[in-house]
Amino acid sequence: MEREIYLDNSATTRPYDEVIDFIDDINRNFYGNPSSLHTKGIQAEKLMKESRDTIARTLGATRDEVYFTSGGTEANNLAIAGYLYANPRKGKHIITTKIEHPSVLEVFKHMSEQGYKVDFLDVDSKGLVRIDDLERLINEDTSLISIICVNNETGVIQPIDEIAAAIKRSGKDIVLHVDAVQAYGKLNIIPKKQGIDILTVSSHKIHGPKGVGAIYISKGTKIKPLVLGGGQERLLRSGTENVPGICGFGMAADITFKSIESNEKHCSSIKSMFIEMLKNSVDGAVIISPENSSPYILNVSFADVRAEVLLHHLETRNIFVSTGSACSSRKNVHSHVLKAMGVKPELIEGAIRFSFSSFNTKEDIVETVEAIKDILPKIRIRRGGRK
Amino acid sequence: MEREIYLDNSATTRPYDEVIDFIDDINRNFYGNPSSLHTKGIQAEKLMKESRDTIARTLGATRDEVYFTSGGTEANNLAIAGYLYANPRKGKHIITTKIEHPSVLEVFKHMSEQGYKVDFLDVDSKGLVRIDDLERLINEDTSLISIICVNNETGVIQPIDEIAAAIKRSGKDIVLHVDAVQAYGKLNIIPKKQGIDILTVSSHKIHGPKGVGAIYISKGTKIKPLVLGGGQERLLRSGTENVPGICGFGMAADITFKSIESNEKHCSSIKSMFIEMLKNSVDGAVIISPENSSPYILNVSFADVRAEVLLHHLETRNIFVSTGSACSSRKNVHSHVLKAMGVKPELIEGAIRFSFSSFNTKEDIVETVEAIKDILPKIRIRRGGRK
Repeated sequence: MEREIYLDNSATTRPYDEVIDFIDDINRNFYGNPSSLHTKGIQAEKLMKESRDTIARTLGATRDEVYFTSGGTEANNLAIAGYLYANPRKGKHIITTKIEHPSVLEVFKHMSEQGYKVDFLDVDSKGLVRIDDLERLINEDTSLISIICVNNETGVIQPIDEIAAAIKRSGKDIVLHVDAVQAYGKLNIIPKKQGIDILTVSSHKIHGPKGVGAIYISKGTKIKPLVLGGGQERLLRSGTENVPGICGFGMAADITFKSIESNEKHCSSIKSMFIEMLKNSVDGAVIISPENSSPYILNVSFADVRAEVLLHHLETRNIFVSTGSACSSRKNVHSHVLKAMGVKPELIEGAIRFSFSSFNTKEDIVETVEAIKDILPKIRIRRGGRK
Repeated sequence: MEREIYLDNSATTRPYDEVIDFIDDINRNFYGNPSSLHTKGIQAEKLMKESRDTIARTLGATRDEVYFTSGGTEANNLAIAGYLYANPRKGKHIITTKIEHPSVLEVFKHMSEQGYKVDFLDVDSKGLVRIDDLERLINEDTSLISIICVNNETGVIQPIDEIAAAIKRSGKDIVLHVDAVQAYGKLNIIPKKQGIDILTVSSHKIHGPKGVGAIYISKGTKIKPLVLGGGQERLLRSGTENVPGICGFGMAADITFKSIESNEKHCSSIKSMFIEMLKNSVDGAVIISPENSSPYILNVSFADVRAEVLLHHLETRNIFVSTGSACSSRKNVHSHVLKAMGVKPELIEGAIRFSFSSFNTKEDIVETVEAIKDILPKIRIRRGGRK
């Protein structure tokens, strides 16, 4: 196969070879239904338990605080709607930010239709929420706050510890949900230590299979299932478990966490190098991702360029990147995240997200910058003149 | 590996080798996010489209009537709750049977808590619903009827055409949902021809991967999503698509439907032979599955035997069977299906479900019967005396 430079790891990652082999083995040899009473069922259940233990370990949690779902989106839905449905007597005011993933934003809109008062926090020019703003919004009726830990478009990292502290200071009965889909396996997050009650993660962002996610629910936090049936996942999520997916996820988490520090170092150096090269040699490149953002995500705008055109030119050279987030990229709307940060429309139009993984190399970056330098003059829009 | 006799195919099946290889290939080489704008996204989308086309073809449907879910359970939830939520002005009376899968029964109970009047149809001693009963229940307020096509515990096949005709005769605005999880790939079902508005199927029951299902929704039938977010599956089911799972499902459906007649013939002859051997040589074997039930399922009760004990004796000989359905087998409750058929408690206690696939051979059956004959005397309960 031709050499590929895949810089769209926040959209999805290539599974680890070991994970692919493991899935193959489970499909072939451990295909039992975990609910079956016989050995083939028990084997499958045992494999799932090992995966659950791995996920729990990586979160400093216990096995019974981890539930598997069909992915991060379902996990976010379950966290928010499931908590509110389970606690109808708690307050009817919920808070999130303007820069959440659609799987949070859409659930908030839905709950607003169900009679909840919903507040969407502004962010500053770096994309950070202000603790003052949050404190002003919290009131007697606030029952849930949902914050994305690492934003999928810019990589900005929210001050989760400060947010948790502000909630604690308020003295109110408020549950904190953290969407950690882009953070898991990249930052160390220990919900119990950090005052996080519910946390959601996804497999396919850390070189695990698609179609699997997990939700951490601290003991004592009540959540109502959204999918009803045979009572799998201790009644929280019915349906025959996706055993190969769940086990592949466990293995991917295990591999990822074993090298979490070296991965971070590697991606940090890639990202720094990329920024340096862009600054030094690419005219009109504006770094959108703030300092101290995730080493795995670099959002850059190219002045007088339509991002989609650049994306397609890059793909002809086997370089794969994204405009905004994958989930909304087909919708041809301006990124709500960059808009909330106050980025100018013409810069939003030229914004590309490069997202890294441990599979990327410095050569990938050198080649990408070379390609960009070569492409840009051909696709620049001459403002105020002919296009 | 030691020879296995897997007779629990209604719980789950071993994926076809071709399907396992295909999943492996997709994980390795086509790992893009279908929402990504670049080639790797488009490739993934194209593969999904082929799978959607296959599923549509097998149902005599069009591509835009098929939506993928995380499995049969989610599909059943979406069919019932999604339809009712989308049509709040329609009648508040819904009908199902007493022998549904929990993923239907539990949703009906939930809708009952939401203010719907819910009726559960009785079945006769064969497990069949009576059209008269159904017609008596239908009224001005009836908006949805949900019927399991092939029951997962006994294999009884409901008269879907007659049920659809009765609904049509009523002249009411009623939607018919059919849970075809155990029927798909085994019976030919053409929803459009048969008056079925919504139909649900699952991948892992037809040698496809776990964690994937699909829902057929006839054009014009409105369903509200249960999982919100990025708007995948034409807004009906958000979340990054499980591409390998979806594609594996498509391939499994393709393989299965190519040999649907020969599979049926094969399993019919296996089942007939099994019944004959049990009748002729196993004392106290009572066939629970009615005549004309699915060739893929045989429910048999063994008098004075606890099914679970027989199951465990069989598994020591590498023969894998089920007591009741896998979903409820861990719960240690008597089968609601057999109870609704009026099967005596002592026969329910001794009921084993053998379920077949094209992978099974006549030798499997001969060995299983021999094993049963050998085990039974050792585990028979002497009623009225010492155990």
